[in-house]
Amino acid sequence: MTDTLIDRRDLAFQLYEVMNTQALIERARFSEHSKETFDAVIETADKMAREKFASHNSAADKNEPAFVDGQVEMLPEVKEAFEAYAGAGFLAGRFDYELGGMQLPESVMAACNGFFTAANPGTAGYPFLTTAAANLIRVFGSDEQRNRFLPHMLSGRYTGTMALTEPHAGSSLADIRTSATPTDDGHYLIKGAKIYISGGEQSITENIVHMVLAKIKGAPPGVKGISLFIVPKFRVDDEGNPGDRNGVSLAGLIHKLGYRGTTSTALSFGDDAPCHGFLVGEPHQGLKYMFQMMNEARVGVGFGAAVIGYRGYMHSLEYAKDRLQGRKTSEKDPESPQVPIIDHADVRRMLLAQKAYSEGGLALCLFGARLMDDQHTHPDAQKRLEAGKLLDLLTPVIKAWPSDYGTRANDLAIQVYGGAGYTREYPVEQCWRDNRLNPIHEGTNGIQALDLLGRKIWQDQSHGLQLLLQEMQADLQAANTERCQQWALSLSETLQQAVKVTQSLGKSLMAGKADETLANASCYLHLFGHIVVAWMWLRQANVAAGALVSANSDAERNFYQGKLQAAQYFFHWELPTVAQDLVLLRNQDDTCLKMKPEWF
Amino acid sequence: MTDTLIDRRDLAFQLYEVMNTQALIERARFSEHSKETFDAVIETADKMAREKFASHNSAADKNEPAFVDGQVEMLPEVKEAFEAYAGAGFLAGRFDYELGGMQLPESVMAACNGFFTAANPGTAGYPFLTTAAANLIRVFGSDEQRNRFLPHMLSGRYTGTMALTEPHAGSSLADIRTSATPTDDGHYLIKGAKIYISGGEQSITENIVHMVLAKIKGAPPGVKGISLFIVPKFRVDDEGNPGDRNGVSLAGLIHKLGYRGTTSTALSFGDDAPCHGFLVGEPHQGLKYMFQMMNEARVGVGFGAAVIGYRGYMHSLEYAKDRLQGRKTSEKDPESPQVPIIDHADVRRMLLAQKAYSEGGLALCLFGARLMDDQHTHPDAQKRLEAGKLLDLLTPVIKAWPSDYGTRANDLAIQVYGGAGYTREYPVEQCWRDNRLNPIHEGTNGIQALDLLGRKIWQDQSHGLQLLLQEMQADLQAANTERCQQWALSLSETLQQAVKVTQSLGKSLMAGKADETLANASCYLHLFGHIVVAWMWLRQANVAAGALVSANSDAERNFYQGKLQAAQYFFHWELPTVAQDLVLLRNQDDTCLKMKPEWF
Repeated sequence: MTDTLIDRRDLAFQLYEVMNTQALIERARFSEHSKETFDAVIETADKMAREKFASHNSAADKNEPAFVDGQVEMLPEVKEAFEAYAGAGFLAGRFDYELGGMQLPESVMAACNGFFTAANPGTAGYPFLTTAAANLIRVFGSDEQRNRFLPHMLSGRYTGTMALTEPHAGSSLADIRTSATPTDDGHYLIKGAKIYISGGEQSITENIVHMVLAKIKGAPPGVKGISLFIVPKFRVDDEGNPGDRNGVSLAGLIHKLGYRGTTSTALSFGDDAPCHGFLVGEPHQGLKYMFQMMNEARVGVGFGAAVIGYRGYMHSLEYAKDRLQGRKTSEKDPESPQVPIIDHADVRRMLLAQKAYSEGGLALCLFGARLMDDQHTHPDAQKRLEAGKLLDLLTPVIKAWPSDYGTRANDLAIQVYGGAGYTREYPVEQCWRDNRLNPIHEGTNGIQALDLLGRKIWQDQSHGLQLLLQEMQADLQAANTERCQQWALSLSETLQQAVKVTQSLGKSLMAGKADETLANASCYLHLFGHIVVAWMWLRQANVAAGALVSANSDAERNFYQGKLQAAQYFFHWELPTVAQDLVLLRNQDDTCLKMKPEWF
Repeated sequence: MTDTLIDRRDLAFQLYEVMNTQALIERARFSEHSKETFDAVIETADKMAREKFASHNSAADKNEPAFVDGQVEMLPEVKEAFEAYAGAGFLAGRFDYELGGMQLPESVMAACNGFFTAANPGTAGYPFLTTAAANLIRVFGSDEQRNRFLPHMLSGRYTGTMALTEPHAGSSLADIRTSATPTDDGHYLIKGAKIYISGGEQSITENIVHMVLAKIKGAPPGVKGISLFIVPKFRVDDEGNPGDRNGVSLAGLIHKLGYRGTTSTALSFGDDAPCHGFLVGEPHQGLKYMFQMMNEARVGVGFGAAVIGYRGYMHSLEYAKDRLQGRKTSEKDPESPQVPIIDHADVRRMLLAQKAYSEGGLALCLFGARLMDDQHTHPDAQKRLEAGKLLDLLTPVIKAWPSDYGTRANDLAIQVYGGAGYTREYPVEQCWRDNRLNPIHEGTNGIQALDLLGRKIWQDQSHGLQLLLQEMQADLQAANTERCQQWALSLSETLQQAVKVTQSLGKSLMAGKADETLANASCYLHLFGHIVVAWMWLRQANVAAGALVSANSDAERNFYQGKLQAAQYFFHWELPTVAQDLVLLRNQDDTCLKMKPEWF
């Protein structure tokens, strides 16, 4: 079991050598920062994550929150960790100085949060949801709402949640039934039931601020009738101090495969007592507002998945270097000493795949975080707009790819450990169990696929897609060693085929064949995701190939060689798997669509 | 949650329409049987599995065996289930009438056991290990050993185990250190430690018979110095009745990700008291003997993996038919009723993949069971020999393919359930956790890959491979509808490329390049496995296409249409994925082999 959460050398490479994050300090918002302050805050996060979060990761998994007398009992370490995180200013890390924040770039905050999730995804859930809920109030709430709730959420006095899903509707938000009835006192009365609400109850803070989707009586049907409400667990006074209990209560805790430290709750609203809710923004605009939080959450899910994948990789890498077993296939002397299992080619394959998935996933998510920075702080208005469009296009990929491949990385980590990996005495099975939530929540990966192929690709006359192709083109042209050029060529050829198949799918959609065109959306997401991550690897390889020449220590040379070999793995072993997606999409294969329920 | 363990219509199709199992009654050994007795015993197994095994599957997972005062505490239902299984004669089902057995064909016994594993893999572990250990004593033990142990093992008075793995050696049996010192009393004194011994302790029966690998002092190094011993928990008298405690004791229970009902133990031999062991057969031949049990166990692992995959498929299929959520992508009216999720193409994809994996895996394992029958009971001596060779070749595939794809099926079952699938309130996450052991134990799938490409393919001048190609040829030629012929053509083309790449790998091995040739053995196993399972689907499709024409009810037509569509899924979505394996193998891609440990 290793202490390393995310390899710091790799993170520095990605942030500074590939992404030039240090350039952000030129921007007004970050002008008080420097590379040194970025590094200091990352160092703090890494250390705190190891000391306050990793330390009870296994214990929180083994002692999951329990529902006792209407209250949730949790390990005290969770509260301590939350308070340490809040106390260090991370809750408000992204926010304005005037809100008590640190005005840190998203790129840096995302990296910091990566350490916390890698250390303990269950405990990290509470602060992350709080920040996201606070940001929703910051952007769409009234001044009064901001004043009442933000200071308490950003200081760690209250946590936040997002309450969307209902038992009968699952992913289909159009069908939610939770109702909101206006009163003369300005608030609404909320009535209904929500399920799978993460952090919906806890024993960490004095109050919880639920961001709840509900329908005002008489609202239009479907998603156009959804409004957003603030529903605090305890009603608050003008300064936001908690008073009487509000009518939202815990109907039950859900027992999960993993992510056990984060409570997953069924909540009932207005069942035993009146539940006051406060409308955020305009009526019927709730889904639009919530999508801000959901999009942030989707990027967050991808990030979490990438770093849990990364954490399992770190564990299994250390194990493979230490564990002696067997000999090379060519070694016939049974009395020769056993070798570390990392010497077996098949173990190297499993480690290299993990490296390709974790570091590739991390690169993708950091790229997404940078787009958020550019969207909000790029000095050029046109660039801000473009960053937003690109982020919009990539959000389903950032959510889905790391959640698929981070989980796969964890599966390989179990296999590297062999029998030991299957036991709860070793840490990797928990990584897998924790990560397995990520392809499901915040919109299943099937939903992400529909979002990508049914909406994002075509949005704004495919402007986002054009921007992506331009960005990729620059890196394709930057390849200037033989290996990198070879990979650039593979990527460029795959890309051409993908563009062609995209055009034909577009025609089919225009012809009104939505069901047929979208039937294999998951293939399209896989194709698209692999192309984007191949690009992430080419970007890293271009930098590594250049740096290798002038590297002045073995450690540095080894680092860059590792990057190049992982890139090679991605280009030899992974990118070619999209050939199959291309065929199925080109043929609009109807095997699944035509399978009748009664044939099963 | 469905009651269906394995679809009986499908099992009947596979056993009787595809494999002509009823023809076995022509053979002397099975002459007292009929299709009716086969069906009756299958019916008994199905019913008993549902009533006595499935009933405590979840409870046994949630209340895993505990180590209390040197004893194991287990749910009483496990003992009841074991006794019911023994009482119905299943322990001795395969064995001779004179041993109290039923002389059932392996094809039928394997099918019966499939129900028990599908119902409750943890509890099913105890009888399965007992049968396998008993069979080892039957074949290699002395008359005295047979008389002492077999009656008690086959009646369910004792269980059996296989004790191979040691803490420092894992998969590398050459390095085991457990020692055996001869005494003048005929027994040996065993000293050492074993780990991951399934069923190594329990509170079900009066005694446990461990089959233990150890090295006699002065034995040759490596695997050629391994002997096999019977080590009972309680020493027995001449009739096999238990007396004093033998010096084998429970050092600890291992806590697993799944398969929690089966104890996984660390055992110590000769630590506190002398441990008597009884040599089976000749000294230093132990690994050869144990391979009989291991090969049986490997086929058993594959079978178990296929049916746990199958069970998850049955659960998620029922859920997808019942659960209403969302609308077709083309439906724009938000007030139209929600549809069952099976109507979504992406859910159908996940169900169809599960069908292809589970039924394909089951077909492969039943084919393996039939080869066992043919190996031992075919009237033609040449055919017996050939069946043995073919089984030998296919054993790594039968072990690995269903364990990879059965687990993948369970992963898809979780995804079909969505959020619900991630909770322990629904049954599919346990299926995945249980199944995840199968790619690890009885030789990891990486070991299987080395066994296939490093040994089995070339054995007897590749006679096994030639037999396989002949068998496949017959089914390729039998394809006589347009769809089946198209699939036969795909398979035949893939096969030709696989043969070519096999030849080039053979040359490379002959040239002494073992490390290079075997580096990508896992790709070869995937290629080979997918070809074999594609063949299994072609066999089923050939039969289904013929039967569809004369089917006389909607239910029958739906069944055969489903088979054909699942075959189409395999040929359109799965078989083409081997293109990537072919490229990597053809190029002897050295990405993983050349990755240096210090580059990670």
